[in-house]
Amino acid sequence: MPVLWFPGAGLVSDPVGSLSRMSSTDQARDAGRTVAEYWAAAESRDWAAFGALVAEDVVYEAPQSRERVSGREAYIRFNAEGFPGGWHLAVQRIVSQGQTAVSMIEFTEEGTSQTGLCFFDLDGDGRIARITDFWPEPYEPPAGRAHLAGRY
Amino acid sequence: MPVLWFPGAGLVSDPVGSLSRMSSTDQARDAGRTVAEYWAAAESRDWAAFGALVAEDVVYEAPQSRERVSGREAYIRFNAEGFPGGWHLAVQRIVSQGQTAVSMIEFTEEGTSQTGLCFFDLDGDGRIARITDFWPEPYEPPAGRAHLAGRY
Repeated sequence: MPVLWFPGAGLVSDPVGSLSRMSSTDQARDAGRTVAEYWAAAESRDWAAFGALVAEDVVYEAPQSRERVSGREAYIRFNAEGFPGGWHLAVQRIVSQGQTAVSMIEFTEEGTSQTGLCFFDLDGDGRIARITDFWPEPYEPPAGRAHLAGRY
Repeated sequence: MPVLWFPGAGLVSDPVGSLSRMSSTDQARDAGRTVAEYWAAAESRDWAAFGALVAEDVVYEAPQSRERVSGREAYIRFNAEGFPGGWHLAVQRIVSQGQTAVSMIEFTEEGTSQTGLCFFDLDGDGRIARITDFWPEPYEPPAGRAHLAGRY
């Protein structure tokens, strides 16, 4: 009986093999699993495992800061040396479709947490070829709509 | 021959019906299609169509501003009255899995564009029950990692 992995559901059995017949579903599962492994490798500072999940020609972009890192070696260095503190991360959600996945993580350092949102595109070998990384920061709501929304 | 809709691919034919056998794939397609229709309704200020896509008890949250809007009527008002300008939006990506979808849009107003990222969770009736909305803003990269990343 095939055992399949789903984001949020973990390993599930597939008694009639109906799920594993669909290549697009396989890709969706792989993209979600790959991204889960990517974050697990980052959290454990296992840069060899981390590097094995990304393509040789991976491109990372952070549209907010317009930072770009190209290539596996540079990208491992960016992660291993660019964030030296005692941070931890927890995956909150992974949504995947085909060769794309989106993650929501909680990144915590020195008691402060921030949400990170990341889009991943995998290549034909199942490696992460493109990463688009967002870090939304708190802001005050516009005064003009204060009567239309509550706060929490 | 069933005709199926995929985000990014539009309508495609399904000659052997293999795709339509899978309920999880159907749900993924529906979530992506629903979110595409949601943004099309918003762009055309068709608040009746917009309201029909969200659940009676929809909950909208913007974690950055900690704004929350509960219920369909309040949520239509928030959108129709809270953003009065001559804005336009363009969907850049939709990623969907099961009853969840994530969108990346470009929101343009008075010549200024901003990226919006939104997580949608659908209920059992296929309506949008929960919206989690993020608006990442530009920031300067931390100086400590300037040697590890280029700019674009």
